[in-house]
Amino acid sequence: MTDLPFVFDLNFPDNIPSYYDRHIKRTLSSMKGLFLDVRAYNQMLSQEDALLYEVYEIKRPELEGELLSGISVVHQGTVGNEYFMTKGHFHSILETGEVYYCLRGEGRMVMETPEGGWAVEILCPGRVLYVPPRWAHRSVNTSKTEDLITFFVYPGNAGHDYRTIEKQGFRKLVVDTSSGVQIIDNPRWCPKKECE
Amino acid sequence: MTDLPFVFDLNFPDNIPSYYDRHIKRTLSSMKGLFLDVRAYNQMLSQEDALLYEVYEIKRPELEGELLSGISVVHQGTVGNEYFMTKGHFHSILETGEVYYCLRGEGRMVMETPEGGWAVEILCPGRVLYVPPRWAHRSVNTSKTEDLITFFVYPGNAGHDYRTIEKQGFRKLVVDTSSGVQIIDNPRWCPKKECE
Repeated sequence: MTDLPFVFDLNFPDNIPSYYDRHIKRTLSSMKGLFLDVRAYNQMLSQEDALLYEVYEIKRPELEGELLSGISVVHQGTVGNEYFMTKGHFHSILETGEVYYCLRGEGRMVMETPEGGWAVEILCPGRVLYVPPRWAHRSVNTSKTEDLITFFVYPGNAGHDYRTIEKQGFRKLVVDTSSGVQIIDNPRWCPKKECE
Repeated sequence: MTDLPFVFDLNFPDNIPSYYDRHIKRTLSSMKGLFLDVRAYNQMLSQEDALLYEVYEIKRPELEGELLSGISVVHQGTVGNEYFMTKGHFHSILETGEVYYCLRGEGRMVMETPEGGWAVEILCPGRVLYVPPRWAHRSVNTSKTEDLITFFVYPGNAGHDYRTIEKQGFRKLVVDTSSGVQIIDNPRWCPKKECE
């Protein structure tokens, strides 16, 4: 890892960084328990372990004062009527924020606090989203035609806590209905104290 | 200032944020002593206090874990043969980095460390630049036709140290020559220990 300044390009149209250190691919099998419709999930998985999203990470020392950045690509599709999405996570150091810049596609960022506060914001090209410290976050691709591509920046020491969301879920789900994109309550949501 | 997630848009073509807290305008008179050609500077200033660059800032608490972001617009022009540029600064907390994403135009980021290390990187649309902790940085617009527009993100507690650069200058300057953009030594550069 260099101590010198460096650049990389996010080239049209796919925005894959011209340089990256790690390429993470999340398929359906790695998302067990996260989609509401278990039957649809199992049926889909029996046919193909579909690629749901990819992350391209630029490495830096995981220290306060450093910034970690990369590209997230959420592919298009649904499991039952729930759109393809990322696992979602809190930061291990809860008091750290994150900036997203949407490069392509259309989606939602689903967010919540440990205290049960929630928010959902629309992602579209040219839009910046600030996820304040303490807010778990999950990207959801609501487009029927293209990938959701975002550029993200977060503090080097933030870390990822996926486990809390795996256990309790997000309070809100984003689903495809005959009247378009809907935000619904997650009937399986289990607030922190009740899950333990 | 909200504790909730929020969004703003960087709309084509001028990329001015649809929401911002502070709009800083830097004119020629605020850049006294920063350009090499003092005669050209004085002559230009006697005619007009030209607008050199603008910054649109999104406020957040200036705390570790928060991220500050905004848009920098460096206009097109020269003072003598030196391109319009920002003042440039170290972060007050030296061990903090910064991420730039270039939205429009063409330029250079001139950087240096307190130990005298230097680097110059090209800025062009779609390019991400990482300024590691410890590196002072200045944006320079090398285009003859358009603004240099960048989106920046840095740690909430970083702070700005403009004074060091005002005293010692940058080691390298970016000038317009008959053979194009050139990086030259700054004959007035005064390393830290010699300036004190």
